Amino acid sequence: MADTVIRKRRSGGRSGNTRRHAVSVIEQMPWHIPQNNDRPTEPLDDAGVAAIHDGAMRILEEVGIEFLNDEALAILREAGCTIDGHNVRMGRDFVMEMVAKAPSSFTITPRNPDREVVIGGKSMVFVNVSSPPNYWDLETGKVPGTREQCQNLLKLTQYFNCIHVAGGYPVEPVDVHASVRHLDVLFDKLTLTDKVCHAYSLGKERVEDVMEMVRIAGGLSEEEFEAKPHMYTNINSTSPLKHDIPMLDGWMRCTRRGQAVIVTPFTLAGAMAPVTMAGAVAQSLAEGLCAIALAQYIRPGTPCAFGTFTSNVDMKSGAPAFGTPEYMRATQMSGQMARFYGLPLRASGSCAANVPDGQAMWETSNALWSAVQSGTNLVYHAAGWLEGGLIASPEKFIMDCEVLQHIQRYFDPALTATTPDDIALDAIKSVGAEGHFFGCDHTQERYTTAFYQPFLSDWRNYEGWALDGGVWTAERAHRMFKEIIGSFEPPPMDEAIREELEAFVAKRKEQGGAPTDF
Amino acid sequence: MADTVIRKRRSGGRSGNTRRHAVSVIEQMPWHIPQNNDRPTEPLDDAGVAAIHDGAMRILEEVGIEFLNDEALAILREAGCTIDGHNVRMGRDFVMEMVAKAPSSFTITPRNPDREVVIGGKSMVFVNVSSPPNYWDLETGKVPGTREQCQNLLKLTQYFNCIHVAGGYPVEPVDVHASVRHLDVLFDKLTLTDKVCHAYSLGKERVEDVMEMVRIAGGLSEEEFEAKPHMYTNINSTSPLKHDIPMLDGWMRCTRRGQAVIVTPFTLAGAMAPVTMAGAVAQSLAEGLCAIALAQYIRPGTPCAFGTFTSNVDMKSGAPAFGTPEYMRATQMSGQMARFYGLPLRASGSCAANVPDGQAMWETSNALWSAVQSGTNLVYHAAGWLEGGLIASPEKFIMDCEVLQHIQRYFDPALTATTPDDIALDAIKSVGAEGHFFGCDHTQERYTTAFYQPFLSDWRNYEGWALDGGVWTAERAHRMFKEIIGSFEPPPMDEAIREELEAFVAKRKEQGGAPTDF
Repeated sequence: MADTVIRKRRSGGRSGNTRRHAVSVIEQMPWHIPQNNDRPTEPLDDAGVAAIHDGAMRILEEVGIEFLNDEALAILREAGCTIDGHNVRMGRDFVMEMVAKAPSSFTITPRNPDREVVIGGKSMVFVNVSSPPNYWDLETGKVPGTREQCQNLLKLTQYFNCIHVAGGYPVEPVDVHASVRHLDVLFDKLTLTDKVCHAYSLGKERVEDVMEMVRIAGGLSEEEFEAKPHMYTNINSTSPLKHDIPMLDGWMRCTRRGQAVIVTPFTLAGAMAPVTMAGAVAQSLAEGLCAIALAQYIRPGTPCAFGTFTSNVDMKSGAPAFGTPEYMRATQMSGQMARFYGLPLRASGSCAANVPDGQAMWETSNALWSAVQSGTNLVYHAAGWLEGGLIASPEKFIMDCEVLQHIQRYFDPALTATTPDDIALDAIKSVGAEGHFFGCDHTQERYTTAFYQPFLSDWRNYEGWALDGGVWTAERAHRMFKEIIGSFEPPPMDEAIREELEAFVAKRKEQGGAPTDF
Repeated sequence: MADTVIRKRRSGGRSGNTRRHAVSVIEQMPWHIPQNNDRPTEPLDDAGVAAIHDGAMRILEEVGIEFLNDEALAILREAGCTIDGHNVRMGRDFVMEMVAKAPSSFTITPRNPDREVVIGGKSMVFVNVSSPPNYWDLETGKVPGTREQCQNLLKLTQYFNCIHVAGGYPVEPVDVHASVRHLDVLFDKLTLTDKVCHAYSLGKERVEDVMEMVRIAGGLSEEEFEAKPHMYTNINSTSPLKHDIPMLDGWMRCTRRGQAVIVTPFTLAGAMAPVTMAGAVAQSLAEGLCAIALAQYIRPGTPCAFGTFTSNVDMKSGAPAFGTPEYMRATQMSGQMARFYGLPLRASGSCAANVPDGQAMWETSNALWSAVQSGTNLVYHAAGWLEGGLIASPEKFIMDCEVLQHIQRYFDPALTATTPDDIALDAIKSVGAEGHFFGCDHTQERYTTAFYQPFLSDWRNYEGWALDGGVWTAERAHRMFKEIIGSFEPPPMDEAIREELEAFVAKRKEQGGAPTDF
């Protein structure tokens, strides 16, 4: 009993950060990994799945993928693949044998073990916006990203319980030199958040530095770090049909050290992939599965996920489009294929809109609901993305979190329970045809938790809303952003660990950080 | 052959209105009734369906429904129901026997037969916003509705091919006296649109006048009018557990004359229905099924649909909320129950937002996608609704039409086709790892139709968008609204029919229209 209390207190000390805020800016839902028990929407029949699989396999067997990394080429040659220059062809038997070694589900454990996430199965994990070079808010307009903006977006990442993973840089801080950018942002990320982190596969120094910093932040020995995933990398192929040197390097480094690896081909139909969605998905799978085969050959059982980023271009301008009907169907088809291969699926929340307005939300809603419908396990860019990923916006971040909370609540089995208490015949009898349900016991016992309570949606009538200034959603989100940043408290971190991190960053900066071309 | 050409020409003359516009304001998708081939999202298992069914039946058997209309009471007494004052109890055998007589699918044919709609099966039909007492646009703000605004919204209803039905008054023209309002609005509706119309069940004169005007507009004899549905009514129960006099009167009048009838209980969980969603759905079904049983007893085979309007209140304020997670699940559960009873389902596009901003679009997207997921056949308020139905807005109308076009395109089987042409292995081979797909034959042959083309979404990059004024979505929609109204051409109507309609309206106005209390 006493032990239980103590463990609870310790747990509270690490994860119960929100409890220490006597007055929080908003009432939000608790940390929870949504469990998607809906049957996925599956536009393909068995023959359709077989056709796309066959297409992906024939791409790997007959066309091949360029592996620009010599180390990867050597490993794949040893594995029996057909190598011609950088071109690698691999038979479907080999691919399927390797892919079968990948777990269908795995965990990633950050420095706060209460923020561990499950990638796979029914779990649906949400990641902040990652990698936009620009920042937009209602005051600044579009400007190049800075470290301060990046920190603010990391604070939102930590603040919102519905965001489970601190993915890539929520905005690229271009005011920090590229040689040391990873050191500063990871330091910020590891001190401002206690959620799962990510390493960009942009050269061995960056990947190794991030792994080392995650190890230090977790207070882990080398052995403890490598014993299970504590972070992950995500690589993109250079579509069509190519994997570049640093991406493969980071992929193999993370694999060797037991960390999770995600491969996400950016297959824009009509540009880097066929104009037909099934073709774009088949190509995407070929590009992804060959990387997963490499990882499984290096270290069988490596936790891998397949990422879909298949969308279409605007055929008038060539500009990428997101959250389109084609995007939704490609995501659903990718979900079917991921289940066929037994792999967790990554997808995205995305839009082409330039500002957080109506278009931004219908495109993002389309993207997020297709993630639900496809059984997606990891949703990148789930909050904060604009302009096809070229802009990160705090208003959009907060607006998206309202939608993410909808999804979290939508999965609550209480909403569709059908026990006698839920059917409520006695309440219906007691209220009859003349009363109302506001005051009845059945309502009184349940009303505080019966319904989703929004933090940003304004449900007042027009007059009440207008009297209070008539503030549109983006402006409300902007004000909330200021309040959250103004009252933000970072999660606790052991002082010795913080000093060790600082020392590591200082040392690596002295050494020049990572090499750059400039 | 000659006959074919002539028929095509006639068809073009009636329906091919858009063809006559050499330059149209926007490029929109053609008229088409979307076919929803997705497997519905079904949160209930068989036991859950049985539990809600049993709940609905026990409400009808043990609690009963108030039928305030004496004629309906007499009919139900004759049918063997247990009558106690206005309270009607009916056994499940009777209910199920009657409901089984309702067709699972039916058509409604307006004056332009090319605009016939199918209600049921896989069809998904979209209806304009109906019945808000207020109007809002970016220039006017919130104001009481007028006939001119109503006409403008009817013009949008006609203009957009993705709107299939001109439902209720798109805004209530409160500048027209209630005694003659139905005459003026129906005249406007029947001359400005050629789509399916609706009669409010607000007194026998209004229902009969509308039926007569629809008959005249269609150039139909009495017999032709009654031979199949040419219009419909939608009634709401007075939840909890009550059907009022005029609603039942209109219900029975339309039933007797072979027109379609839809019953939509407005069961707000926590207010007019149990706080638990399964209870609210069960009550909603009880209220709906007893009306359908009445219609089937009067005229077996009457085309009926069950409408769900189960949402929840904000438990802080009691205000209705829409597009919530609870709303989505209630809609999906209602879809399962409608299929259980073999009835077409009506649902809605809805939101609580006061202006067409981000919140408006995430709430509406939630509502519309839950309509898709539930297999809804008829989507009321699919375009133009704000403030929980208290405001109609042209900007919101146009923004919603973009989402409706998404849904129409989403259902296109071409998006998920997996023929060898779709897998595109030859194109992938020919482009290889160094090229791109913009120029290849496979793309060139398909690019004009490969992807959804938006009419309102702005897919330009930020700089292009900013240079052009940086216009947010609602403002773009406002400008488009002005252009559409400015260039609107009504659909053709035979001059003799128009005169007959005018004469009917004049005669009925002379007679005082419909009685009112004021």
